Amino acid sequence: MKPTESKPGLRVALLGCGTVGSEVARLMREQAADLEARIGVPLELAGIAVRRLDRRREGIDPALLTTDALSLVTRDDVDIVVEVIGGIEPARQLLLAAMKAGKAVVTANKALLAQDGETVFGAAREYGADLYYEAAVAGAIPLLRPLRESLVGDHVHRVLGIVNGTTNYILDQMDTHGAGFGEALEEAQELGYAEADPTADVEGFDAAAKAAILAQLAFHTHVTAADVHREGITEVTAADVAGARARGSVVKLLAICERVPGDDGDGGRGVSVRVYPAMIPRSHPLASVREAYNAVFVEARSAGSLMFYGAGAGGAPTASAVLGDLVAVARNRVIGSRGPVEVTYAELPVLPMGETITRYYIQLDVADRSGVLAQVAEEFARHDVSIQAVSQDGQGEDAQLVVVTHRAPDAALAATVEGLRGLDIVRRVASVMRVEADETP
Amino acid sequence: MKPTESKPGLRVALLGCGTVGSEVARLMREQAADLEARIGVPLELAGIAVRRLDRRREGIDPALLTTDALSLVTRDDVDIVVEVIGGIEPARQLLLAAMKAGKAVVTANKALLAQDGETVFGAAREYGADLYYEAAVAGAIPLLRPLRESLVGDHVHRVLGIVNGTTNYILDQMDTHGAGFGEALEEAQELGYAEADPTADVEGFDAAAKAAILAQLAFHTHVTAADVHREGITEVTAADVAGARARGSVVKLLAICERVPGDDGDGGRGVSVRVYPAMIPRSHPLASVREAYNAVFVEARSAGSLMFYGAGAGGAPTASAVLGDLVAVARNRVIGSRGPVEVTYAELPVLPMGETITRYYIQLDVADRSGVLAQVAEEFARHDVSIQAVSQDGQGEDAQLVVVTHRAPDAALAATVEGLRGLDIVRRVASVMRVEADETP
Repeated sequence: MKPTESKPGLRVALLGCGTVGSEVARLMREQAADLEARIGVPLELAGIAVRRLDRRREGIDPALLTTDALSLVTRDDVDIVVEVIGGIEPARQLLLAAMKAGKAVVTANKALLAQDGETVFGAAREYGADLYYEAAVAGAIPLLRPLRESLVGDHVHRVLGIVNGTTNYILDQMDTHGAGFGEALEEAQELGYAEADPTADVEGFDAAAKAAILAQLAFHTHVTAADVHREGITEVTAADVAGARARGSVVKLLAICERVPGDDGDGGRGVSVRVYPAMIPRSHPLASVREAYNAVFVEARSAGSLMFYGAGAGGAPTASAVLGDLVAVARNRVIGSRGPVEVTYAELPVLPMGETITRYYIQLDVADRSGVLAQVAEEFARHDVSIQAVSQDGQGEDAQLVVVTHRAPDAALAATVEGLRGLDIVRRVASVMRVEADETP
Repeated sequence: MKPTESKPGLRVALLGCGTVGSEVARLMREQAADLEARIGVPLELAGIAVRRLDRRREGIDPALLTTDALSLVTRDDVDIVVEVIGGIEPARQLLLAAMKAGKAVVTANKALLAQDGETVFGAAREYGADLYYEAAVAGAIPLLRPLRESLVGDHVHRVLGIVNGTTNYILDQMDTHGAGFGEALEEAQELGYAEADPTADVEGFDAAAKAAILAQLAFHTHVTAADVHREGITEVTAADVAGARARGSVVKLLAICERVPGDDGDGGRGVSVRVYPAMIPRSHPLASVREAYNAVFVEARSAGSLMFYGAGAGGAPTASAVLGDLVAVARNRVIGSRGPVEVTYAELPVLPMGETITRYYIQLDVADRSGVLAQVAEEFARHDVSIQAVSQDGQGEDAQLVVVTHRAPDAALAATVEGLRGLDIVRRVASVMRVEADETP
């Protein structure tokens, strides 16, 4: 028998023991003294829910393992539930049961919060439960806590970020070495930056889920992953990247959450939430985010521009974010309080992509004869799209026209591109890319 | 008479009504509805302590003004005290009285927390008072909250930052336009980036105060401004900046807080806290911090490298940070809880600069004859300092030697430079600068 402890500890149920879960367990064990000093009482693992009991897990007492997650999260001796299983079910059911049973919850579950945040946040409100989820977006980068707490007295205009490490690695390789998408993807897969099935990353699904969570927090309104306009990077070509380079820009997959000002100038029309590859100027701080790093730029009325940068994924960084949340909820328990509750009081509509105001970079292979520019310019004018800059290059077969527009509704820009495709003097629309983070109107 | 409110509000005493204070008052007024939605109850200004009553203050009810700050902070109808006076006294006395009287406190007072944090944090512990101070370091950049809360389950190795906007502006001008220090300072003064008496900024006092606060938080140990080794930028020359540029580096005034590993490899020896101009590689994210922006790089065991970037000063950004804290303490009041308490349980010693491990860049004007390199190399060897790279340039009067060392105790490096000054083949030590954020051992 163990000697009786003078201070009763807080007991933690861990759901999942993969890369992140085993790292959380290891940190809890190795940093037990530090954690106790910071919380005031010791943290103890009450149990770990896993799918299979027969796998060897280093440093973990087999007596802690169980396959009955639902019983574990509702056990009387559990104070805090840490969920790192991921996916919608059974994670949702387990989190709801835990909160109903009065447990505080820490989760890294991006998919669930992006798809059905309403149910999970609603349960936290209903049961008065702590719900922390820093690890769900951008790994260890302390981003949600600043948005939830530090900037809570400010007015956020825009969140603009690189929130997917895999695609940033691929685009960075394309930019640095002139590689094509396929080649860069293969390299990322060899190095473990991309999965064997890279769809969730390269098609932008992962970034869209994070954008939904960020938009909910930044604008205090409901946004789900399905509301997010999403384009991946599979169609980004070496020519797109070279075109960006030629104009002092770089292509990044951006998650953008923006307030769209109404006539009152105060974000009254709604919000725009979107994920796509776009050109940004090389002088922008986001342009220097290399390899698989993540960074998120936040623009707020009083705070101005802020950027948060760091490793966006990986077992250790994600576990660090989980531990930070675990300490926060544990401290709340010790002092008998709870953290901030999600308040979605500003029910702003999510605007369709067509109504979003953007800028386009368009590269055209054109016939080498006089009057081409006039015909192209007329097509832009027909859709009420104003041209910011145009340049003509090459001759004969290589005649090219590069057009950068002023800001216009995305639907008008898309219709312009369609119109250009129909012109007989346009041999090919070689590249279309949006331009962001460049303050030209 | 006003109609009775259904929910009683929280009442705020504001100490100081200068640039930051008047902005806080304005935001409280203009964003009252938003703040109430986020807190659950309205915030009301109970009074504003000022030095003089006769100045006109736009948008502020003169009935709120008082010169009796001590009575204001202890008034029964005050819940929260916001201190933006700055300086040691009367701020310290007022904060202590407020906490003793059960008020929650928000302060932007860098000088006080850096000089006598122990007294202020001690009072918060003793009286169980909330004490929030995000605005004291790096303006609106949410930096302290992540360190206090998000990274609380991690182990911070190093904090490396640009925490003074004035000096960053000056050094950026020197780097971009080749300006000398005096010229760049004058320009900064004309543009309002530097004060008429720029001592606190250019001599590194402001950065040293911030470094002390950051070190306390990062390493959970006592550090005061007086413990910080401090060198300003007044002696940085155009030649230093050009020398940095020639080796792909840039000169930045850095605040560095570092754990010094003991034989157990675990930061057992102590901490090093220092402020000085140093060369960092242009590829480092801190190198791209331009103009008067601030950025802080944090390296933690699990989280890896994180960076926080934004406007480090100014009325609006500082007020934004104060508002974030105000919402946090107000929420704590509403739910009857309090925020994290400073726990300084790791009493690590602050090591003297001589024992700190650094690297030097040294540029020498030397005699143009054979054997110079051998004699110089011997001087380094005599102090047990290993040379990483050396290059010889110019001839005759212009003969120069540039040496970059490996890592060595600062005392040995300083002694080497003294030794070099004594060599008759060394005509002049033209530049000495530390090298940081460059992973060469």
